Amino acid sequence: MAYELYYWPSIPGRGEFIRLALEEAGAQYVDVARGRQGVGAMTKLMKSGLAGQLPFAPPFLKDGDLIVSHVANILMYLGPRLDLAPKSEPARHGLNGLQLTITDFVGEAHDTHHPISSELYYEDQKQEAKARSAAFIEHRIPKFLGYFERVLTHNPKGAHHAFGGSLTYVDLSLFQVIEGLRYAFPKAMKAEEKRHPALVALHDLVQIRPNIARYLASDRRIAFNESCVFRRYPELDEG
Amino acid sequence: MAYELYYWPSIPGRGEFIRLALEEAGAQYVDVARGRQGVGAMTKLMKSGLAGQLPFAPPFLKDGDLIVSHVANILMYLGPRLDLAPKSEPARHGLNGLQLTITDFVGEAHDTHHPISSELYYEDQKQEAKARSAAFIEHRIPKFLGYFERVLTHNPKGAHHAFGGSLTYVDLSLFQVIEGLRYAFPKAMKAEEKRHPALVALHDLVQIRPNIARYLASDRRIAFNESCVFRRYPELDEG
Repeated sequence: MAYELYYWPSIPGRGEFIRLALEEAGAQYVDVARGRQGVGAMTKLMKSGLAGQLPFAPPFLKDGDLIVSHVANILMYLGPRLDLAPKSEPARHGLNGLQLTITDFVGEAHDTHHPISSELYYEDQKQEAKARSAAFIEHRIPKFLGYFERVLTHNPKGAHHAFGGSLTYVDLSLFQVIEGLRYAFPKAMKAEEKRHPALVALHDLVQIRPNIARYLASDRRIAFNESCVFRRYPELDEG
Repeated sequence: MAYELYYWPSIPGRGEFIRLALEEAGAQYVDVARGRQGVGAMTKLMKSGLAGQLPFAPPFLKDGDLIVSHVANILMYLGPRLDLAPKSEPARHGLNGLQLTITDFVGEAHDTHHPISSELYYEDQKQEAKARSAAFIEHRIPKFLGYFERVLTHNPKGAHHAFGGSLTYVDLSLFQVIEGLRYAFPKAMKAEEKRHPALVALHDLVQIRPNIARYLASDRRIAFNESCVFRRYPELDEG
């Protein structure tokens, strides 16, 4: 049976980390909310749940009778099934630790444009967004990218992968993080990329993988936009 | 071999979710950073890693040669080993989804007092903290508590547990979230608790479990304080 992915249909957002894994693996999946009446189906499942399983927010994955929610959890579930994670249980927790640091990084990227409340418009928290973005650019981007650069260069199996000697979903997610940061903070990233060559090399290797390249060129790939986690507001990219 | 927990020694913080699970299970563990030169040992492990395993931040757990980082990941690893999670792999992902929503809630509770930057003092972002706290009290506390109340009341095995028919680490974490919110936002919580009776009942049941009660009365339990994720700044509890 095909996996059912539930996520907002008009943004890459957090759902994109799941899409990349499914696409790389060539897995059968339905991007439910992009289909007819799909958002209604998603909302209904969130309201009524399925046999007591209530997702808090998209994205979530339905696999038969099981609902798996949160990006890192979905990827950890899919990882061994899609051959994008080690099979051993302890190693899977090592990989999941890396993905959860990506979760935190993405959450902080979101809060650059919504530091006060997701209930308010960006325009109503613009000054605070400028302050938070300046701190994000000065402290957090270097900290997170520096961390993942170290993870790559410390990998006993080589710097082509974040974990072990073959491709995992964490490599795909790091590609997407670089993509998102380039979109949202092009000026800041120009300087940062020079300091993180292993990450940039990983990004470039992921980009040319046949299934990923085909996906990126397809209309299944949604362009970044200003409803997404990563947003391009030039005034936030000043540093 | 005893588990080694690495976390800041003077706050409950995020480490407390791990401590509660270890204590409930009566597991052998060392709270490394609370011992002599323990913070040095923690810092060293973060800098040099262990066979390529580099934790991003405390808390992390060392079990023999394995390092597991991030609260939800550590709990998912410990869960079946401490009999605080189902053994079946799909069910463990269901449970992990709940814990990751707690992670988000705790992260937002932290950002009420640090909405702009963790590099700045609270006093330097106090106005923004007031705005973020007001939104947290008005929108986010009701949303998260309402969600977990629904999870409890929708549990086919009964509202005494968040997942299945017996105690899991998610129940222990929900206890700690209620404790933290009561400490940080006593005024707001007074009103909220009336609307979430199943959560309050779960909190009260966890509190009187023998191992938990013994732990809470011991000097191993660290009191909440203003270096913690949950902080009591009365000016943020105005709503």
